Amino acid sequence: MKTKKGVILLSGGIDSATTLYIAKQQGYHLRALIFEYKQLHRKEIAAAKKIACCAGIDYQCLSINIPWSRSALTDSRIPLPLDQAAGLHGIPSTYVSGRNIIFLSYAVSFAESINAKAVFIGAHIHDYSGYPDCRPEFLDAFQAAIRRGLKVASIKIVAPLLRKSKKEIIRTGLRLKVPYKFTWSCYSGRRRPCGRCDSCYFRARAFSELGIKDPLCEK
Amino acid sequence: MKTKKGVILLSGGIDSATTLYIAKQQGYHLRALIFEYKQLHRKEIAAAKKIACCAGIDYQCLSINIPWSRSALTDSRIPLPLDQAAGLHGIPSTYVSGRNIIFLSYAVSFAESINAKAVFIGAHIHDYSGYPDCRPEFLDAFQAAIRRGLKVASIKIVAPLLRKSKKEIIRTGLRLKVPYKFTWSCYSGRRRPCGRCDSCYFRARAFSELGIKDPLCEK
Repeated sequence: MKTKKGVILLSGGIDSATTLYIAKQQGYHLRALIFEYKQLHRKEIAAAKKIACCAGIDYQCLSINIPWSRSALTDSRIPLPLDQAAGLHGIPSTYVSGRNIIFLSYAVSFAESINAKAVFIGAHIHDYSGYPDCRPEFLDAFQAAIRRGLKVASIKIVAPLLRKSKKEIIRTGLRLKVPYKFTWSCYSGRRRPCGRCDSCYFRARAFSELGIKDPLCEK
Repeated sequence: MKTKKGVILLSGGIDSATTLYIAKQQGYHLRALIFEYKQLHRKEIAAAKKIACCAGIDYQCLSINIPWSRSALTDSRIPLPLDQAAGLHGIPSTYVSGRNIIFLSYAVSFAESINAKAVFIGAHIHDYSGYPDCRPEFLDAFQAAIRRGLKVASIKIVAPLLRKSKKEIIRTGLRLKVPYKFTWSCYSGRRRPCGRCDSCYFRARAFSELGIKDPLCEK
């Protein structure tokens, strides 16, 4: 019998999908939170729902309103970084101010309300190291904050991919049979992956390093 | 010329209204965030807007969805505490899981996006000491988390009422000409204050201790 409950932040990309399957393997009975925040690549929301269905878990899809956001992910007038290493030059234009802070806040509230023990997040420091709210030091500090700010002090933030590269993430996911063909990574908001944005670049490079074809491209 | 920008979490009650006027006096050019979270006492939203107008500041009203919330503030089937010291017996039924964590997350995102230096919150440890997300140790830890999770590490969480009693808060506010007649405290969701819930009790007691009539009751 599954007894450990968990909440997973599910975006529809490779990282959160892999995190979901890792948490499932650890015996967690999961509920997913999927966020619609007026991202241009809304296709990831359908991908997240599809992955939740494949994994046989329930989800809540929440629309959140951050009208002040000035990010290439939410404003088509701001160019997407295409130089394939945007994070190395500081915080990229795809940064959405406070996004993981907001997502995690909802997730811990949800977790507390359903008596879940853990909140899973697919954050990792490689590839997108430019995002401050993906860093271990942020996650540790946020953990400390919720320990003091919630009724249930024991809820854990779990980021199993934190120090893995995209290649290692996909290798782990393939073993766990993550349905990568249903994941969506491209930031451009088009029907097909643009192949040029950071997110497409890191995805393609990881599959190439593993010597396998991206199942998304085979659909 | 006002140059310091700030964000204020405005609920329509005495505490946040007083905090607003304190921040104004400190020279902050403020923007308010008002949240609609399906609270039964929606009248506080109109109160918050009125106070923002009186203070001459702009506001954003955000609807947020926390469908899992099991609180007497959002579910009329859960009784409001009427024993006038609910917080002394543990966390009261009016607790909304993660509410200040969510509110502050939006506020710091907003602050970062408009180059504001501070986020003001009317939290205090007296009267409602049952809420874990009003405690100084939570606010300190949240401050540490956003220092690591935001692009602008210097945004400050400011809670000027933290250790003041309701009586001291109102005394300060009267000096600053806070329009208390437009504030709203009652949790019951009725047209007139119920006079029985915790929030009515602490408000009435503070005005009584100051030997003055609550201007809300004179309207």
